Amino acid sequence: MSQMTNNFSKWYIDTIQKADLIDYTPVRGCIAFKPDSYEIWEHIQAEMDKRFKETGHRNAYFPMLIPESFFQKEKDHIEGFSPELPWVTEAAGEELEERLALRPTSETMIGHLYSNWIKSYRDLPVLINQWANVFRWEKKTLPFIRTSEFLWQEGHTAHVDEEEARKETMQMLSIYKEVVEGLLAIPVYDGQKTPSERFAGAVDTFSIEAMMKDGKAVQAGTSHYLGTKFAEAFDIKYLNKENKHTYVHTTSWGTSTRLIGSVIMVHGDEKGLVLPPQIAPTQVVLIPVGPWKKNPAIVEKLDEIFAALKAKGIRVHLDDSDQSPGYKFNEWELKGVPVRIELGPRDLENQQALMKARDEDEKVSVSLDAVIEHVEKELEMMQTRLLEKAKAFRTENSHTHIETLDELTTHLEKSKEQETIPGWVLAGWCGDDACEETIKEKTKFTTRNIPFNPPTTKHKCLNCGKEAKHTVWFARAY
Amino acid sequence: MSQMTNNFSKWYIDTIQKADLIDYTPVRGCIAFKPDSYEIWEHIQAEMDKRFKETGHRNAYFPMLIPESFFQKEKDHIEGFSPELPWVTEAAGEELEERLALRPTSETMIGHLYSNWIKSYRDLPVLINQWANVFRWEKKTLPFIRTSEFLWQEGHTAHVDEEEARKETMQMLSIYKEVVEGLLAIPVYDGQKTPSERFAGAVDTFSIEAMMKDGKAVQAGTSHYLGTKFAEAFDIKYLNKENKHTYVHTTSWGTSTRLIGSVIMVHGDEKGLVLPPQIAPTQVVLIPVGPWKKNPAIVEKLDEIFAALKAKGIRVHLDDSDQSPGYKFNEWELKGVPVRIELGPRDLENQQALMKARDEDEKVSVSLDAVIEHVEKELEMMQTRLLEKAKAFRTENSHTHIETLDELTTHLEKSKEQETIPGWVLAGWCGDDACEETIKEKTKFTTRNIPFNPPTTKHKCLNCGKEAKHTVWFARAY
Ligand SMILES: [Zn+2]
Ligand SMILES: [Zn+2]
Repeated sequence: MSQMTNNFSKWYIDTIQKADLIDYTPVRGCIAFKPDSYEIWEHIQAEMDKRFKETGHRNAYFPMLIPESFFQKEKDHIEGFSPELPWVTEAAGEELEERLALRPTSETMIGHLYSNWIKSYRDLPVLINQWANVFRWEKKTLPFIRTSEFLWQEGHTAHVDEEEARKETMQMLSIYKEVVEGLLAIPVYDGQKTPSERFAGAVDTFSIEAMMKDGKAVQAGTSHYLGTKFAEAFDIKYLNKENKHTYVHTTSWGTSTRLIGSVIMVHGDEKGLVLPPQIAPTQVVLIPVGPWKKNPAIVEKLDEIFAALKAKGIRVHLDDSDQSPGYKFNEWELKGVPVRIELGPRDLENQQALMKARDEDEKVSVSLDAVIEHVEKELEMMQTRLLEKAKAFRTENSHTHIETLDELTTHLEKSKEQETIPGWVLAGWCGDDACEETIKEKTKFTTRNIPFNPPTTKHKCLNCGKEAKHTVWFARAY
Repeated sequence: MSQMTNNFSKWYIDTIQKADLIDYTPVRGCIAFKPDSYEIWEHIQAEMDKRFKETGHRNAYFPMLIPESFFQKEKDHIEGFSPELPWVTEAAGEELEERLALRPTSETMIGHLYSNWIKSYRDLPVLINQWANVFRWEKKTLPFIRTSEFLWQEGHTAHVDEEEARKETMQMLSIYKEVVEGLLAIPVYDGQKTPSERFAGAVDTFSIEAMMKDGKAVQAGTSHYLGTKFAEAFDIKYLNKENKHTYVHTTSWGTSTRLIGSVIMVHGDEKGLVLPPQIAPTQVVLIPVGPWKKNPAIVEKLDEIFAALKAKGIRVHLDDSDQSPGYKFNEWELKGVPVRIELGPRDLENQQALMKARDEDEKVSVSLDAVIEHVEKELEMMQTRLLEKAKAFRTENSHTHIETLDELTTHLEKSKEQETIPGWVLAGWCGDDACEETIKEKTKFTTRNIPFNPPTTKHKCLNCGKEAKHTVWFARAY
């Protein structure tokens, strides 16, 4: 861990390239998602999409190009996004009359369209999701975590009233929490963003926040209650049961390919990726060892295991290439394959194989009779274990006894000296933007969210010492 | 049918709007895919994706923005695409040093990357597919068929030699044929494009061509053997087994959301959409009739049928809204729902229901005991029947006895007079571009493809009367 801690960014960038997840391109901040990282995304998509559909949402697709005038309609929205927009100004040899932005998010295009689609209370709720590419031309980029183009889903719903819209906002946040904890084995705190960290144009933003192995936070998903702000900006009204024109209440919610980056930074280790079994492109690798080429029964047995695992729907690979076993072990550990089975002549004689889980140090000997059951069980256990390990790591690096900015500064100095990670700090906040700003300036710690279920409640503001209105997670963030 | 024939475009545009498939936006040629059309696309995607994976392909994602210099590297490619490109020239408040095109297709970006990824024969073949949005800024647009932004999949593979690459090209074309005929119930002719209709940068282009109800052709999928053209342009070389640097042979192949338009134009009728059961968002609609509100047993029985169909994985909707049965019949016919079940008090008494297939005129009475089996069977039969009907229509409108340009002109005049559709013409072609050009100028008929299995072989060129090198489908095309 020390190498990772010393230069975590370098470890991250080296790891994703060595594990063959991405390639860079000459277009600033635009990466190619190679098959292994794209497949992780496909597993995330499948699970999210299933849950969206189970809760009554349908997918649609909206144009990527957004007229400049659409952005002007919601003042907070344009302020938040305009510094990051790429613009199409020419097409088919002619200059365009109006510049078209590459969507950073689709509230404006969708607001425009919903105003046509929604006429009566009978048209509500509108529950739509979109899987799409989006663009945010940011200065500092980092593969998966912050790229100029990324892939995401954005849900956009419209409701008769605030109550229903807020219920939707919360429902989607809890789906995110379940998928990120269940499928990605990443524990998250769900909570509300402070006003300064709100989505541009939202009334309230809620997030799930995850701790990476360098102690920094990643906002892993957000769900916004937009009130009637976009309804007013785009004139989305419906005729209610009393025959009165009424603004709809809208929500939006999103998760993106930054989840892939989070998986790497939460579970990875010195040897490379560690992938939760449910999203691993290869879940099991079979490797013949010893003088296996002289002994065809070895590969025959592995072929048999391969077929049996495949029939169970397990994603398995048999590596019978010419490389040495040691080379193969490193290679597949680097790629984060959850379970490895080794079989050599001696093992076969004894009717057993060696099994190793990617996150455990020891190999275990398993009977060939029961190898399929052992693998299945290990995949399940590893999925649970990774979540538990990440929870333990988070607990260890969550600091709940820091009461003042001085104490925080001391903590940071100490962690720097001792080369430990600063982690997260749970502290009180009076609700004043200025206190948030001061803390940020002095420590680079920002408010992550106001957790719904904090480990403890704080009573004094970290900065001014006045009565705390909220108990807040503070951390450095990606 | 006469109304459709008289103004087919108007019928098409009216139908897709009334059936709630799309909406227009202020961005030229960019439409919103509403949930019903997007779900058709999802069903197409699922089937295609399954087949791509079964044949060893994996998905990846490549940047959408392509530097102008990439296009310059393959001369035919830039000539073909530059008239249609939209350009990003500014981002985040600054002018870009180099213009970035919105991808019309990704051979160039992928060529650039493959040159890094491919070093040795061990790295081959590379079998990658991408699901993405693409842009072609065309003058005349038509929803689904020709839009400025559309959705598609593009496969890009690299191989050791021509033989393997050509095999791949043909394999993907036959997957397209199977999916379009099997899933969409659209019969197609597979064949080779003439040089003038080739993909910009291809050595050979192959296509599947479908006949719409107005007799025009839609190119429903294409597969290209690119030879070493892109390998040379982007320096994609590998070290072969004899340790020599060798250019790879590449292929690309694509199908797009224009398939949705084809489904509508092949199966639709005066009443609206007719959707093949396998891709219909709603496969069965249950409608209570007669004085059903006074008789709660009716909706109870329909609820039961609903649950039984749903349990079988059938996409079913119960319409118990306040509208009249006649209104509902029209509505669901317009949306192309394959099977309708009606249940009223009299039916219930007799333990039967009425079943109507969207493409048949008569309702049939089915026993309530066996209603699930009847529905399942009808969905299967309708899928087959639609393909057969489309084949019969195509045969009826395929003209194989036209030998000269004069005969073609006479045929066209006659079809105009009689208000019939001109259809397709199978004719000989000497292989001379000038003959193709003359035919196009005089009749607007272009070469669709040189079918692998023509209904008959032609011996004289339609234009010059010289010996025919090829037997070709000629038609007006979208
Ligand atoms: Zn304060
Ligand atoms: Zn000729």
